[in-house]
Order: sequence, then C-alpha cells, then structure tokens
Amino acid sequence: MIFLFTDFGHRASYVGQMRAVLERTAPGGAVVELTAFAPAFEPRPAAYLLAAEGRIARPGDVVLAVVDPGVGTERAPLAALVDGVWFVGPDNGLLALVARRARSVAWHRIDWRPEHLSATFHGRDLFAPVAARLARGDASGLVPSAPTTNTDGWPDDLDAVVFVDDYGNAMTGRRAATLPHDAVVLAGCHRFAAGRTFADDGRRRGFWYENAIGLVELAVREGSAAATFGLAVGTPVTLAPPGPNP
Amino acid sequence: MIFLFTDFGHRASYVGQMRAVLERTAPGGAVVELTAFAPAFEPRPAAYLLAAEGRIARPGDVVLAVVDPGVGTERAPLAALVDGVWFVGPDNGLLALVARRARSVAWHRIDWRPEHLSATFHGRDLFAPVAARLARGDASGLVPSAPTTNTDGWPDDLDAVVFVDDYGNAMTGRRAATLPHDAVVLAGCHRFAAGRTFADDGRRRGFWYENAIGLVELAVREGSAAATFGLAVGTPVTLAPPGPNP
Amino acid sequence: MIFLFTDFGHRASYVGQMRAVLERTAPGGAVVELTAFAPAFEPRPAAYLLAAEGRIARPGDVVLAVVDPGVGTERAPLAALVDGVWFVGPDNGLLALVARRARSVAWHRIDWRPEHLSATFHGRDLFAPVAARLARGDASGLVPSAPTTNTDGWPDDLDAVVFVDDYGNAMTGRRAATLPHDAVVLAGCHRFAAGRTFADDGRRRGFWYENAIGLVELAVREGSAAATFGLAVGTPVTLAPPGPNP
Repeated sequence: MIFLFTDFGHRASYVGQMRAVLERTAPGGAVVELTAFAPAFEPRPAAYLLAAEGRIARPGDVVLAVVDPGVGTERAPLAALVDGVWFVGPDNGLLALVARRARSVAWHRIDWRPEHLSATFHGRDLFAPVAARLARGDASGLVPSAPTTNTDGWPDDLDAVVFVDDYGNAMTGRRAATLPHDAVVLAGCHRFAAGRTFADDGRRRGFWYENAIGLVELAVREGSAAATFGLAVGTPVTLAPPGPNP
Repeated sequence: MIFLFTDFGHRASYVGQMRAVLERTAPGGAVVELTAFAPAFEPRPAAYLLAAEGRIARPGDVVLAVVDPGVGTERAPLAALVDGVWFVGPDNGLLALVARRARSVAWHRIDWRPEHLSATFHGRDLFAPVAARLARGDASGLVPSAPTTNTDGWPDDLDAVVFVDDYGNAMTGRRAATLPHDAVVLAGCHRFAAGRTFADDGRRRGFWYENAIGLVELAVREGSAAATFGLAVGTPVTLAPPGPNP
Repeated sequence: MIFLFTDFGHRASYVGQMRAVLERTAPGGAVVELTAFAPAFEPRPAAYLLAAEGRIARPGDVVLAVVDPGVGTERAPLAALVDGVWFVGPDNGLLALVARRARSVAWHRIDWRPEHLSATFHGRDLFAPVAARLARGDASGLVPSAPTTNTDGWPDDLDAVVFVDDYGNAMTGRRAATLPHDAVVLAGCHRFAAGRTFADDGRRRGFWYENAIGLVELAVREGSAAATFGLAVGTPVTLAPPGPNP
C-alpha cells in the first residue's frame, strides 16, 4: 500500500497527477491518502504529524511525503527504509522524527532522475515514480547517504499545534504517552483537563485526550476547539500546574 | 462495493485510515465515498440525508455510516441488513430512516471487538473491519438485536435543510415525491417556486426542484442559495400557500 | 484510465455517485480525479484549464469533464476523440480548447440515453456510463456530429486567472510557452517578474512561473498570491512593459 502525506490541498489536480503516475508505474496498487493538509510550507511541524500518521504503514508499504517549499533547489530527494517501511520525501527535516523514533533506519539519496523533471512538482515527476517502484520492490537509483538537514535541535515532541481537523479539533506534536494521565494542558490561554472521550466534556469547557494516532489533541464536545480557543498550527502548548480553570 | 458516509471532513486522515483498514481486510474491493460532510455531530438530520444517499447501494453492497458524537460511550454498534444492503453504524438514530423506508430490515448488534479499540475512532477500529467482513460475506460477530435509540417521534420527512453543497444548493430532509409538483417552499424568509432544471430559474430568484437523490433542494441558477437566502443545516422549511413572491 | 474534471466540489456525493456508476459499468478500472473545483458554472475559463490538465491523458484514456450549468436543457452531450483520448462532456464550449490544440479531432454527439435520466445530474446518468463504456472500448450510441456552441471568438490563450489552488497560487489561461522567459505579467495592480522556482521569490514580492501543466501561474513564496494581490477566477492578466515594480 502507498500512503500519501502532502500539503497539496484538494482543490487542484496535484494529488490526481501523482495518482496517475502511481497507477501507470504500479498498476492496480492500492493508494491511500492520509492527508493533503499537512502544515503548508512547514516541514518542522509536518514532521511531527508524519511521525504519528506514518505508524499506520506496515513493512512493505511506502509513505510518500511531500511538504517541499524548497522544490527545485539543491535540497536532495530522500528514501529511508524505516523499520521495513519506505518513506520517500525531500531532505528538509520532514522525515527526521519518523527516523528518530525507529528501531532501524537506512537512509538513501535518490539519484534517479526522470526524463522530464519540472522545476516545481517533484512530487509528480520524481517522488511518485520512485514510490511506485519501491512498492514493486525496485530500489534502483538509490544511494546510501545520510540527510544533510540538521534537526539535532528539534525536540523529541513538539509542544505546539500541528494540525486542525474539520471539526476544529487541534492535534499537537506531543505524544500522549509522554504525559501523566491527569496532566493539564495550557494552550491559547485556556486550561484543558484530561478526558478519554468527547462525552467526558459534559459542559463543553474543552479537554485534551490521546487521539487515535497517539497525539495530545485539544477538543470541545460537539464544537470547535480551534474557533473557541483560537488555536491554529503553531499555537504553543504547555503543561500547566494542576488547578481549577480560572 | 462499500460506500462511506461520514462527518469526518477531508482535512484529516480519518477517511484514509478507514480506507487502509478496508483495503487490508478486503483487498482490492471498491470503496466509494458518498460524503465526509454529513451534518457534524447530528445523527438526526444526517439520518434523512443517509436515507436518500443510501439508495445508491444494491444488494450485496455495504454502507458504512459514521456520525457518532457518542463514540466511546455505551451506545452500541449496529449492522442492519436493509433490503439486501448492509448498513453499519452507531445506535443513535443514524440508521432509523433508512430502516423505516425499507421493505425488510434485520437489525443486529455488533458484538465483535478488535484487539485494539481506541476510545474515539470506532470508525477505523470497529465499523470499518466489520464493513469489510460483511462485504466479503462474513457476518460473524453479529447478534440479532433491535436498536435502543427511540426515534418514534422523528417525522417521516424532515422539513429542514440537511446539507449544503459546494455550489450553495441546500438539500432538505423532505422527499420531493411527497409534495405537489407546483408546491411553494418557504425557507429563510423566501418563497421558492418549483422548477425542473437550473435554466428554469431565469431571473435567479431561487427555486426548488427534485434533486438527483429525490430530495427537495433549494437553489439559485449559477449562484449560492445558501449565501443568498441564509440557509444552513437546520434551517426550517415549510410549505407555503401559493401566491406571488412578496 | 478515466480522469474526472468537474466543478462539483467535495462536500456532496456527486463525485462518489459518478464513481459508483463507473465502477459498476467498468469494474476495477482506474479512476483518477483531476479536480472537482473547475470554475463553477463557467465553461469558458474551465475550457482553458481543461486544455492544460487534459494533457495528462494518453491514448486509450477517457477524460470525463462536467461543468454544465445548462444541464437538462437542449444542449447536446458530446464525446470527442482527441489525439486518441476520449473527452466526454456537454456542448457548451468546455471541450473547445482541447480540440483546438489537437492534431486530430473526431466529434460525436451522444445519442444514447439511459433508462432513467435525471433533469439535473447528467454527469451521473449519462456522461459517466458513456465514459465507462468508452474506457472498455465500446463507442456505441455515438453519432459523428460537430458541436454547435460557437467558440470562434474565444482566444487561443485566456489572459485571466482560471484557477486558484489551496496555497493561493493563481493559474492563468495562458500557456507559458507563448511568453518570453523574462516577460512581466500584470495582474491585480501588481507586476509579477518571472521566476523558475519558489526559492527565486526571495523577498516574497510575488512572481510568475511556468507551472507543471504549462500555464503561467502567479505565486508568492510560502504565501498566498490570491490573498496578497486579490486574485480570483476571472481576474484579468496582461503583459506589462519591462520595468521596476513601482
């Protein structure tokens, strides 16, 4: 299975153009889009989202990840075999957290180039054909090589909002397993107590919970946490001392 | 064929995560999304939309319907065989109108549970695997059992807007076949005369017509009825006495 | 492969209903959506977008194009074999530019009618079944016949915005190959100098470049050209004399 993780959005044909290439290169293969709304132009928060979303992949699967504001410049294209799953994407930090949390990582630079490479759409012209070939078991054109983007200063978990869904729920870059179950999370000047399901937020004061991909997520029962508390990608999140909501 | 009907939206990976489960459980099966924009958190209006949308399914198909604000609470998961089509979803009224309009209904409670069941995403962890197994003809883990949600007070047709599309057309929960062809529909302080095609609304004053899934739909030729007349999910609709638009 | 090009949007089930028909008529065939956000109700700008997007198709493929405000009126349904690719859509000019730029075009009127033809959704009831049959090699029900929409006055390239993507990049109806490499493009009271990649727009003053489907596109590095410069579908674009940005 090939998973798509991009910041392309859904209005334009970008995802469709990649799907056409995937279908032509690996006919009949399953292609599943995770999201086309990763943080646009921002590999750093996107990296934390990808590290959580990418856990859906199993050995033999390929995750095609494109958040690539530097497309057409000298940044290299990468393919990393991470615990048996191929991750394909640009050398800009996007794959850094996926790799950091893995048991085994084999980094490769993609030296293969297509006959025609556009200046602004390597997702279609380079990453998609490579992903389809990897899905077929063809790893030609890859050269073992470490990434050059320095992400040493990036934290293990990102205490900021990295995604807002259509309900207005706000996912953070922090794994819930790193917090005490009764932690209080502060974001947008609001204190979020812990809950397990939406029903736990009886009075709709907002709460945080471990979402289905393991991240700390801020939500309001049957409402929009983003609109209610002014949360957006980049909004900082902090652990607060226990206490009542002022 | 498996049809998806949810309120998940398209930004997040929720639909993709369900598609991955469906593909793994029933490889190569066709999965078609009807909508990810059913009325969010609102099983009642969603039930009327589903009853119209679900008519696309044929015997052997499965409709996976998730509008589930009570996820993680005690509400049961259901599977109903309705005129040969399996409908899978939560026991909150979402399947009530589908069943009420059917010739035959066999209700089941889903007793099967996956190895790992998240607190907030039963669409992925429970409903999708069951839907895929039903698509393969495997109905194990189901127990004949009536739903517990009381929908006796729900009308046969809902005189309210239940959906607004990207054009701004507003679908109601009323089947057009229940109205006289020349009925006048009142909504948002506007009188909508009957039409058959958009071209009939020559002066762009708005009109209603029987849409392609049989519902009364309010529209403006080459314009947005929702924006023009202030229509949204929940806006009441009434039959008006015939007469000129004031 | 069947490509979808519509103005249906993604909220409603329209694309899903077409996919269900395609799957039933040509089971297992690949269906790839290019866009559901072509200019709504506007066949003229949509025709220039389609002429660029449609180049992805190869002989044997089918492009199903529906921007059809006149649905249900007397306008004919068309199928055109264009350099080996079938284009299916309404006779309202939508296919005019695809045909004008081709080496060979064989126009047909679709005389086939389904058992049930709704008044407002020929995409599902008529165009989709015909597209699926053409994908299977079945061209029955077609009669050689020229389109009746007069598009003689339409220019070879349209100097206006025809599409805005989720980033806020604005595509025009002009092919970049028709401009000098150092042309200056004027739109929304702003002068856009030429660039090749987003990195070329170091100071984020906006630039134009040849996009991945060959069109002149207006963009801002890591920003929204549409929001910054007030660009929308229909905004005129002109070639400006060279000179500094005032």
